[in-house]
Amino acid sequence: MRYFEDYRPGDVHEFTNTITVDEQRMIEFATEFDPQPFHVDKDADSPFGGLIASGWHTAAMMMRLFADHYLSDVASLASPGVDQVRWLVPVRAGDTLRLRATVLDARRSASKPDRGIVRTGVELLNQRDEVVMTLDATNFLLLRDPDQRP
Amino acid sequence: MRYFEDYRPGDVHEFTNTITVDEQRMIEFATEFDPQPFHVDKDADSPFGGLIASGWHTAAMMMRLFADHYLSDVASLASPGVDQVRWLVPVRAGDTLRLRATVLDARRSASKPDRGIVRTGVELLNQRDEVVMTLDATNFLLLRDPDQRP
Repeated sequence: MRYFEDYRPGDVHEFTNTITVDEQRMIEFATEFDPQPFHVDKDADSPFGGLIASGWHTAAMMMRLFADHYLSDVASLASPGVDQVRWLVPVRAGDTLRLRATVLDARRSASKPDRGIVRTGVELLNQRDEVVMTLDATNFLLLRDPDQRP
Repeated sequence: MRYFEDYRPGDVHEFTNTITVDEQRMIEFATEFDPQPFHVDKDADSPFGGLIASGWHTAAMMMRLFADHYLSDVASLASPGVDQVRWLVPVRAGDTLRLRATVLDARRSASKPDRGIVRTGVELLNQRDEVVMTLDATNFLLLRDPDQRP
């Protein structure tokens, strides 16, 4: 279980846990949410030389790794948003993705003393150690000990 | 069919097409990608007073409206990223979502004369006309007439 106090600026959390991209699931996701030809049609004349995952599917897979390994059930109070989402390298079926998270900033809330605000530089890497997606995440996290002086 | 030339800065595209949030699908999405208690457990002590959609599910539903109504199959060459994603109002089962897209900027690519870069201010609204999510999207779009002087 992690709390706000466990996120220290500069700390880098690199996880060995992975998600492997399943082709059928990739096509299903895109069919539901992002039905552009290069996401859903294996025979399309793709500018990427074949089918690639919707960026939102990649983001969702990133979130699964982020929720499971970087956040914790109890301490997380959800997120007001994310910034600078970048899709850098195409994600394809069979790719194996993992997470690297760098704590950029951690400060206590001025208005709500039970929580803090953590900003995290998120990198999603593939099996060739290419960074396929980056974003800056912001999360509200509960303090373990709210009575501690800020 | 739309091309780069059809996106003019200042234009506001507001669509009446909607997506209604299905509770079972909302829980399935979060179970797969974002299994925090307030996304998956109806009986959890949610800070939001009940189950809310994962922000990434909301983003994916936005993308479906964006791909179907704002982009077009042929002209879109995918996206390098998005900025300033903000989840402003909780999205719940039964909510009906629609899209408003404002063209912020449209310029031709310096390196690739067949395409342009369009930046769009995206707003997702619910049935009470509350803006539930905003983001700035960047898209590469093909020109209808690449031989036109920039």
